[in-house]
Amino acid sequence: MVTGTEVITARITDINGPWVSEQLAGLGIEVAHIIVVADRPDDLEHALRFLDAEGMDLIITSGGLGPTADDLTAEVVGRFAGREMKLDVEMEAKIAAILRRFAKTRAFKVDEAAVMDANRKQAMVPEGAEALDPVGTAPGLVVPFGDGPGRVVIVLPGPPRELQPMWPVALATDGVKAVLAQTTPLHGLTMRMFGVPESEIAKSLREIEDDDGVDVEAVEVTTCLRRGEIEIDVRWREETEAVAMAVRDGLQRRHRRETFSLDGQTIDDQVAKLLKGHRLGLAESCSGGLMAARITNVPGASDYFAGSAVTYSYEAKEELLGVPKELIEEFGAVSPQVAEAMAKGALERFDADVAVSITGIAGPGGGTQEKPVGYVCFNARLADGTVIARDPVIPGGRSDIRERSGLVAMHLLRILLSGDDADSPA
Amino acid sequence: MVTGTEVITARITDINGPWVSEQLAGLGIEVAHIIVVADRPDDLEHALRFLDAEGMDLIITSGGLGPTADDLTAEVVGRFAGREMKLDVEMEAKIAAILRRFAKTRAFKVDEAAVMDANRKQAMVPEGAEALDPVGTAPGLVVPFGDGPGRVVIVLPGPPRELQPMWPVALATDGVKAVLAQTTPLHGLTMRMFGVPESEIAKSLREIEDDDGVDVEAVEVTTCLRRGEIEIDVRWREETEAVAMAVRDGLQRRHRRETFSLDGQTIDDQVAKLLKGHRLGLAESCSGGLMAARITNVPGASDYFAGSAVTYSYEAKEELLGVPKELIEEFGAVSPQVAEAMAKGALERFDADVAVSITGIAGPGGGTQEKPVGYVCFNARLADGTVIARDPVIPGGRSDIRERSGLVAMHLLRILLSGDDADSPA
Repeated sequence: MVTGTEVITARITDINGPWVSEQLAGLGIEVAHIIVVADRPDDLEHALRFLDAEGMDLIITSGGLGPTADDLTAEVVGRFAGREMKLDVEMEAKIAAILRRFAKTRAFKVDEAAVMDANRKQAMVPEGAEALDPVGTAPGLVVPFGDGPGRVVIVLPGPPRELQPMWPVALATDGVKAVLAQTTPLHGLTMRMFGVPESEIAKSLREIEDDDGVDVEAVEVTTCLRRGEIEIDVRWREETEAVAMAVRDGLQRRHRRETFSLDGQTIDDQVAKLLKGHRLGLAESCSGGLMAARITNVPGASDYFAGSAVTYSYEAKEELLGVPKELIEEFGAVSPQVAEAMAKGALERFDADVAVSITGIAGPGGGTQEKPVGYVCFNARLADGTVIARDPVIPGGRSDIRERSGLVAMHLLRILLSGDDADSPA
Repeated sequence: MVTGTEVITARITDINGPWVSEQLAGLGIEVAHIIVVADRPDDLEHALRFLDAEGMDLIITSGGLGPTADDLTAEVVGRFAGREMKLDVEMEAKIAAILRRFAKTRAFKVDEAAVMDANRKQAMVPEGAEALDPVGTAPGLVVPFGDGPGRVVIVLPGPPRELQPMWPVALATDGVKAVLAQTTPLHGLTMRMFGVPESEIAKSLREIEDDDGVDVEAVEVTTCLRRGEIEIDVRWREETEAVAMAVRDGLQRRHRRETFSLDGQTIDDQVAKLLKGHRLGLAESCSGGLMAARITNVPGASDYFAGSAVTYSYEAKEELLGVPKELIEEFGAVSPQVAEAMAKGALERFDADVAVSITGIAGPGGGTQEKPVGYVCFNARLADGTVIARDPVIPGGRSDIRERSGLVAMHLLRILLSGDDADSPA
């Protein structure tokens, strides 16, 4: 149960629901409902009663633990569980210490009495509940509810930077341990593929069932198209481990060329590792800096990334990358020839030993019969002359084409640097 | 009610809930709950009964309208509303025509009988419901439920590219019109500010109430920190328009310097407009291409964007932007002096009349006592020598610092190009 009017009105995007859901999956707990409710006590209580009636063993709430009057979650959960609110004196002292520290570092004057009063509210704990130490200023709670043992509400703060560190603390409480004792943990692996349609994976899974005689239904396989790549998640319990391995091997055998990760590593992780000891220069046009942004998103990228020349105009291509104007006039700015000259220019100007160029038509305007919107030329090369050149037509709208261009370039870098599959030296 | 196991397991992010929620806000309809449920018929039906019991006038579902056996929404909604499913022969013919068209363009062999059979399912409509023509292959539904008039379930497909075009069609049905007749539309405006803490806005709203005597509670004001800017949404009904205007004016008067948008325009829109007729060159270091990506995200950016030199190494700064190595050695790569040289280099190398440079320490490593992580130097300048230079310490982690750097640079561009507030020519 995610609380907050700002979530329900779409002012902010909920990331707690999906994050908690992923944690639970790893613990072998199936999520039945995610409910987002506005900050109205009746709505909160009714949602809790609904989840109770649905037979949930575990309810997790996020948000509504602040010091102000519209932060109601703890109180509503207490009422729902039929437990009286009592002041936790020790917790009150902890919160007070945190607030004094904040007040000091912020160097502003605070009406201490008013603050302490408002924050006594945060130290009210339902009787019989376990309180979790604050990460920010709000403590979390683990509150038993319903008949019989092993049913609890975990009450967590809304800000993800507070909720996430509190999660392992909540799992270690007696209340939550009793819930976890009722399930067996799920194991999981994530495979990633590039360049294969989702429907092909469905077909392969049917073949693994029919031709290989593997009981695929005994494990959980989810396939998802994520930013241009296929992500396949296989989850299993101890007793079906052999089935999971057969599914993984069957998929890999059928899509050997397209499978680039068997251990969940992303293409960005892999390229970052492959670039160690190299020096990379980029030459970008239609990707408009997105490839550079992607490379530099990894901490420590400065060890191998020299830079990117983002060149939108002919003049910039000539001035920054030394692409002859005549070449652009003869073949067009979007052409394999200009992509090659850009990549060579990047090698030289950045004094790099590996370079990739991207030049294409992101649209919405600028397409022709011969070179439609989505036509993108890539040239990935090493200083020794090893090269991979591609010029696909990438489907989708402007932002798809821009983003996908960066993704294709990442995969070309991977292939180039891992020594698989490169075209013969030019 | 958002259906789909892939949403509940966080494989995909729900965008339908927030999107529909924003549409409803504009129509004056308050959203009480957003429920995400897995594809289990009992869970779907229980969620519908919960929403019914909560007294909802309008329930909107997304997803579960496909041709396969686990697409159950239409049937479950029919059962929930106590209406028998009947074949809509006209709809069946429409779907058949769409499928034949698909089969033709895809140029693969299709077992037509099997396809038509599977898709008869999609033409089953609860008695008394209004069917909405498919955008993809799945029709939508408007299904009356409960006692008395004016309560409906709108059943929409899951893919946003199908759901969104179907929305206006759903609003035009008799069933939905009867619901809308019970409300009065909300008007709204969005203000944006930069460089003011959220707590200051809360204080100003209290002053507007106490000092200006405006009944702020009569309108709906939501304040939200969105990617480093404050977004203030004011919503009102006809009769409280004067209050809304007083709130807007009161906020603007108190935060004149920080208010950059009164009409919802984003900084990216504004800078794109201001750049018309100019020629922009960028010199980026810690932002790693994100500023270029932001500028080129706007279609038509090639009219004014020449390029960006993303220079991570000393050598790249020297080679691409002509920043003397001695300057870097004397003052450091992150210094106002190097930022100035980078911006001047961008003006020259891109033959631009406006340039911005960004050089800073994004972390996690590289900070010192004097220049901590988050220290970023900016230099925004016109060819005529007008300049704005800043060197703030930006709070947050690596990705915050990178993104915020681009945002600050956008605001410096806005101030520079709109002629407000620039420092005197250097």
